[in-house]
Amino acid sequence: MNIDGKAWRTIWLEPDSGLGSYAIGVIDQTLLPHQFTTRTLRSCAEAADAISTMVVRGAPLIGVTGAYGLMLALQADPGDTSLAAAFEQLNATRPTAINLRWALERVRAKVQPLAPAERAEAAKAEAAAIADEDVAMCDAIGNHGLAIFQQLAAARPGARLNVLTHCNAGWLATVDWGTALAPIYKAHRAGLPIHVWVDETRPRNQGASLTAYELAKEGVPHTVIVDNAGGHLMQHGQVDAVIVGTDRTTRRGDVCNKIGTYLKALAAHDNGVPFYVALPASTIDWTIGDGVAEIPIEARSAEEVTHIQGRGADGAITTVQLTPTGSAGFNPAFDVTPARLVTGLITERGVAAATEAGLQELYGND
Amino acid sequence: MNIDGKAWRTIWLEPDSGLGSYAIGVIDQTLLPHQFTTRTLRSCAEAADAISTMVVRGAPLIGVTGAYGLMLALQADPGDTSLAAAFEQLNATRPTAINLRWALERVRAKVQPLAPAERAEAAKAEAAAIADEDVAMCDAIGNHGLAIFQQLAAARPGARLNVLTHCNAGWLATVDWGTALAPIYKAHRAGLPIHVWVDETRPRNQGASLTAYELAKEGVPHTVIVDNAGGHLMQHGQVDAVIVGTDRTTRRGDVCNKIGTYLKALAAHDNGVPFYVALPASTIDWTIGDGVAEIPIEARSAEEVTHIQGRGADGAITTVQLTPTGSAGFNPAFDVTPARLVTGLITERGVAAATEAGLQELYGND
Repeated sequence: MNIDGKAWRTIWLEPDSGLGSYAIGVIDQTLLPHQFTTRTLRSCAEAADAISTMVVRGAPLIGVTGAYGLMLALQADPGDTSLAAAFEQLNATRPTAINLRWALERVRAKVQPLAPAERAEAAKAEAAAIADEDVAMCDAIGNHGLAIFQQLAAARPGARLNVLTHCNAGWLATVDWGTALAPIYKAHRAGLPIHVWVDETRPRNQGASLTAYELAKEGVPHTVIVDNAGGHLMQHGQVDAVIVGTDRTTRRGDVCNKIGTYLKALAAHDNGVPFYVALPASTIDWTIGDGVAEIPIEARSAEEVTHIQGRGADGAITTVQLTPTGSAGFNPAFDVTPARLVTGLITERGVAAATEAGLQELYGND
Repeated sequence: MNIDGKAWRTIWLEPDSGLGSYAIGVIDQTLLPHQFTTRTLRSCAEAADAISTMVVRGAPLIGVTGAYGLMLALQADPGDTSLAAAFEQLNATRPTAINLRWALERVRAKVQPLAPAERAEAAKAEAAAIADEDVAMCDAIGNHGLAIFQQLAAARPGARLNVLTHCNAGWLATVDWGTALAPIYKAHRAGLPIHVWVDETRPRNQGASLTAYELAKEGVPHTVIVDNAGGHLMQHGQVDAVIVGTDRTTRRGDVCNKIGTYLKALAAHDNGVPFYVALPASTIDWTIGDGVAEIPIEARSAEEVTHIQGRGADGAITTVQLTPTGSAGFNPAFDVTPARLVTGLITERGVAAATEAGLQELYGND
């Protein structure tokens, strides 16, 4: 999508001068929305670090970064030990993101049977294929979601279509287009009068920073709200639909997404507001049925709760402490929204009911 | 309650040297938890400003500050025009807080029949009476809430009693003790193994700053969480009860409290967690039945969403910008929790069902 008129992806190959091999370019998302900077990743360790420090984030982009991370490892040492170590190093960075393991397994399956000398090139091709497929999937999700928004808009001609989203499931979380934001971009480009309520999404504020940044750069009307406000807006008819992404979806349609998603789903249900989840098939974990009971939830550093980063009056990116010194914090990063609260799952193959039967109908023959 | 071993109230009389009259002392709550500073208010305009800039906040404390604000106005000019203007100036500062109008009307009713020369002294006595009554009410609320916590603790002997609270309904929001925190202080002093999950309460972070500060100064075990986290904790049995305050309670038991309260009530209901609201009778608005439809919700400055204040690495209190420049924010300050989600209303007279009959049973003979 566009930044200042130039089309970008979130991850790309860069020639690594002198080595005859490649590096990976990414946008440093920790500095957004205040500063646009790219970073070059030259080793598997740098790729792992970029994932764990959230230089890159979002389930699909994490998967692609992991895939390219294996390429970087195999460029340095294409042996079996190197491959196994790189797989473990990358897989350990973000335990909740099912895409990461999926992408790593896909590249490993491709390169393991090959002679070491052929592995790096094969990993590059496979990672690039994952990236291109992700773009195509997001494009398809966008089209299926657009049809839903067109129906909602047709029911109230001329009225602003107010869509609430949580966290960032936009193009910055994927390679391009995004998942939950793809239908929003398509709707805006199709001329629907769409307006987005952007949950700030504490503690890391991916909504206030990344989603607002994306929407601003594409010119989509939007308003940032605190995470507490969505229920009130729904009570007063100010939200026509909620659309979010997911890091992991169970075979029954439970959705594990950024902490706080569950609260918005409860409010949507209580007020008759449709609640949609946009996802590529790679986030579906067919091994898990009951998301609340079975999905382990990553607890991140309490410092993300006790401190926050922003831009100071002098323009510098600054971190400030919010809590009394000595007060502890706890920081579960995700929660699970039970399928009973989900109106529909918008996938690259179409819209499924959030049930085992609904997902089977779309994916059962694979 | 205690700060560094010294007992404080949130508001007190100070002799205003040379004038033969009084000023008002308050704690500047905008600098907490990073800096403890008191301020002296010498005019009605300063009292109104202290309310609207949230130097003082919390429905009961706003009411007492308003009452003393009338005293300050009458000290300067005890005439009818001065009284009417001061009433309007103070009443306009925070439209949602029912206590404010209640306290202003109470003082006005007392002073209006008097000769101008007697008015300031009468206003002082009435404001002091409101303050003392508030302390007594909070003490009684604390005792009634303690009984509930004792029952919950008795059901699971030896286990930590986890109570979640939103915003600040502690002694800093009242004159002493607090409303929702009074039962917590009583439980802690009674030796119950209580632990408090403190919602940070964006946008102004009254939980992370004021509630955490209060609890830390009293030595009550607590953990700060983002507003998004409570639902997840409830899904996993980590919350035994929720207790919050209220700015306005309808005669049917709907509760208007800090934005985001409704979301926690939904999560409590979905997980079978009891949801209590602590309140003095002065927050009950008998003229209103349906809180969602009838209570006007104050929208505060969008800058509270787009910017946040904290303590920088150099110790200075600093404001940083969170959103992209140019992204709009919207900031509704309260929401309404329908009575159907409320387990009980803990008042100074006992615990009422959140229904018209329940409130009538406690207050019907007044």
